[in-house]
Amino acid sequence: MRVAELSNRSGVPVPTIKYYLREGLLPAGERTSPNQARYSEEHLHRLRLVRALVEVGGLSISAARDVLGALDDPDKSLYKAMGTVEKAVVALDGEPSSDEVAHEWVREFVTRHGWELEEDSGVYATLVNVLTTARQVGQDTFVDVLDDYARACVDISERDLDWVMTAPSQDAALEMVAVGTVLGDAALAAVRRLARRHAAQRRTAPPPPCP
Amino acid sequence: MRVAELSNRSGVPVPTIKYYLREGLLPAGERTSPNQARYSEEHLHRLRLVRALVEVGGLSISAARDVLGALDDPDKSLYKAMGTVEKAVVALDGEPSSDEVAHEWVREFVTRHGWELEEDSGVYATLVNVLTTARQVGQDTFVDVLDDYARACVDISERDLDWVMTAPSQDAALEMVAVGTVLGDAALAAVRRLARRHAAQRRTAPPPPCP
Repeated sequence: MRVAELSNRSGVPVPTIKYYLREGLLPAGERTSPNQARYSEEHLHRLRLVRALVEVGGLSISAARDVLGALDDPDKSLYKAMGTVEKAVVALDGEPSSDEVAHEWVREFVTRHGWELEEDSGVYATLVNVLTTARQVGQDTFVDVLDDYARACVDISERDLDWVMTAPSQDAALEMVAVGTVLGDAALAAVRRLARRHAAQRRTAPPPPCP
Repeated sequence: MRVAELSNRSGVPVPTIKYYLREGLLPAGERTSPNQARYSEEHLHRLRLVRALVEVGGLSISAARDVLGALDDPDKSLYKAMGTVEKAVVALDGEPSSDEVAHEWVREFVTRHGWELEEDSGVYATLVNVLTTARQVGQDTFVDVLDDYARACVDISERDLDWVMTAPSQDAALEMVAVGTVLGDAALAAVRRLARRHAAQRRTAPPPPCP
């Protein structure tokens, strides 16, 4: 198909498609003349994937390029792709604070759940900084909430992986990891707001009127 | 205390403190001379709160101002503050797509869990757009994952509220809502990565060597 049809079917404007082509997010079409190229169903699929990552997931062009690179990697594996996607998706980074109590809490938390976590990772720094900040504003007990997050996240993760395992091929599974992480973050934030609002409403609702 | 001591005790540089003062995130100190002001323990506490929202939570100055406004509102309530905080914190917005299947899925999802959701809200638009995108990249089954997210989010929300209820006063409870939402988002993202990585590692680990 021509670029105009690619645009029609994907809903992505032609200038944006050209931009993605220039940025290497979309492979070049097959040249049919100096000014024209032909695109396949695969291009359409890849373009929709780019849209999911960039427009719905809010990824930067370079982060999206990293994620797509993981899908195209000849040595790809589920675990490796997951690492790349996570690095690209979450802005969990920065230097951990020097609050030793927070460091100790994070180490205990990780051990308590039987996990492993490198202390030079963004996830480690994020947890240390969250707990440091909670302590500074006098909310030391926030650390207890983490254990409940952990239990909920184990459930979510198992379910996410069960879903990925339904993929018909490894390529499809890797795409599910990429899309699932990006869309999953947005969906989880939305669902959490919804659940919390409902719970708060229920707790603070006035008693029903007397009959 | 002078601004220098406020800076020392909070770890926030003096120029940043002056910026927060100009932006109205921090109330002015008590003038002691044309060039000097005195700050109280309350200023220090408020400054730490600003830091939590802006530096750890990644809120914009205007979003942080909205959240602090909710804490200072004379008509404040837990439920109202929660709404303001959520609006400021999550970038869940945009127009929902015109994909009728996705709209129907979201309506069914919300009803199935006994929730309520205005169709002109950012949460609704986010869910519709996530499902539209999933459909476009051929991952229609992603909708099933949402039910598991819902169950996990109900647990998390109840626990979050239990934690807020431990507050010694309503003012403290509102601060816990603000800090808990902002830090909670960061913490939940980090914990989820950790749990998922562990689950993936376990599933793809080679079998243990023969004895």
